[in-house]
Amino acid sequence: MNHDQKPTKDQLSRRRFFVKAGLGAAAAAAVPAIAGSCSSGQKQKKGISRFFSPGDVVLFQGDSITDAGRNRQRQLPNDAASIGTGYVYLIAAGILKELAGHELTVYNRGISGNKVYQLAERWQEDCIDLEPDVLSILIGVNDYWHARQGRYDGTPEVYERDFRELLNRTRESLPNIKLVICEPFILTETSAVDDSWMEPFRVYREIASKLAGEFSAVRVPFQQSFNVALTKAPATHWTGDGVHPSLAGCRLMADAWLEAIS
Amino acid sequence: MNHDQKPTKDQLSRRRFFVKAGLGAAAAAAVPAIAGSCSSGQKQKKGISRFFSPGDVVLFQGDSITDAGRNRQRQLPNDAASIGTGYVYLIAAGILKELAGHELTVYNRGISGNKVYQLAERWQEDCIDLEPDVLSILIGVNDYWHARQGRYDGTPEVYERDFRELLNRTRESLPNIKLVICEPFILTETSAVDDSWMEPFRVYREIASKLAGEFSAVRVPFQQSFNVALTKAPATHWTGDGVHPSLAGCRLMADAWLEAIS
Repeated sequence: MNHDQKPTKDQLSRRRFFVKAGLGAAAAAAVPAIAGSCSSGQKQKKGISRFFSPGDVVLFQGDSITDAGRNRQRQLPNDAASIGTGYVYLIAAGILKELAGHELTVYNRGISGNKVYQLAERWQEDCIDLEPDVLSILIGVNDYWHARQGRYDGTPEVYERDFRELLNRTRESLPNIKLVICEPFILTETSAVDDSWMEPFRVYREIASKLAGEFSAVRVPFQQSFNVALTKAPATHWTGDGVHPSLAGCRLMADAWLEAIS
Repeated sequence: MNHDQKPTKDQLSRRRFFVKAGLGAAAAAAVPAIAGSCSSGQKQKKGISRFFSPGDVVLFQGDSITDAGRNRQRQLPNDAASIGTGYVYLIAAGILKELAGHELTVYNRGISGNKVYQLAERWQEDCIDLEPDVLSILIGVNDYWHARQGRYDGTPEVYERDFRELLNRTRESLPNIKLVICEPFILTETSAVDDSWMEPFRVYREIASKLAGEFSAVRVPFQQSFNVALTKAPATHWTGDGVHPSLAGCRLMADAWLEAIS
């Protein structure tokens, strides 16, 4: 979709009501065409159509990995430049195509450099006000990295406390929201990450994983996907610096995300 | 992959020789993992691994649909910002992930507004010098559109002559190149395209199709894919103006392209 201007909140609400109320049948009719029999691809398509409801607003939140060079002046849903060139683009293009009748609205509000407390600072405008039905969060690598570099005084305890608070606040404002919590990941033998990251970073990943359980969220095990990918090509094929994914790494993430929600 | 600077032609040649000579075994070993049995998805993956050879340089050429907002200052292969947010990004991410061991190099050199004669003007630098093993071309909508608007005096005959000349020149310089010719497409009931486009534009599409046959190229029937998609959602879901694809439209194109080469 091309939008010439940012829709108002009223327009968003009206549109969602209309879509949810009126288009269920058309969307349901589209399901058989993408539901198949024996392959994981078909199974995934079926799972995707179960996870999303017609009219769903889908929001991606996080740091530079989510941001992926998006044009932050545009802020439009379902718009390539506003969505950037990362895993969000791949997921958005995939679900908007497969669930063409669902009239999904996909936003990216990741901001490069963000730690969990910085999500909290902009949460009202960049999450609650958008009234997402599905919220995917990938946050944590900067909480560790910036502390490691001495430019942030956060600890794993701060990450856990702030993250839990953010999730509680989200659930209180949007009780029916479907949460997707992505585990932060790193790959060693890359330009920025070496073995000394492994143990301290594992703590952050395990916190994200624990919170996914605590909030009955879908957990996306990115680290595991990347670990499997290392059997096919060296780490630098998937991420040059060990943190930011390459094109192949973005596709790996999109596939892992879709697999997790299916 | 992240590249800090543009590789020299010598570096490119050396890299390709090394990859083609040395990595066949590793790449071949990766094939069973993506070759499956009963689904179209698995069949496509198998087809992709047959179409590309280890070390292949893959070049996408065309107009704004191919350009898709790429950063033309960067010009790097396998680089998100250099590849833009269109169908090329989706194809590149897909093949770089699925064929991780192949060490493919993917370039985008589409330029917004181009007609076939403008490809010819920059063909030495933007095609021949890159020594592609695979070349995908999508060109033609501006050849018609700009003539329709009265700002270009080309005709279908000019399009055919120029396009054939470009393909002959390419084959002469790169005799073993694998050609992919994408049919230009339009969708009516959109902001820029109405029924009066259909007949005159069909002539351009048929020329592209004929040339695909003449040059034993893979033909990508984009129009047919979009026509099928219209049974699932209105035209504006796939392209706002009838020419430039939405995210869903880009994914549809990427899928059609991968299906065609498989």
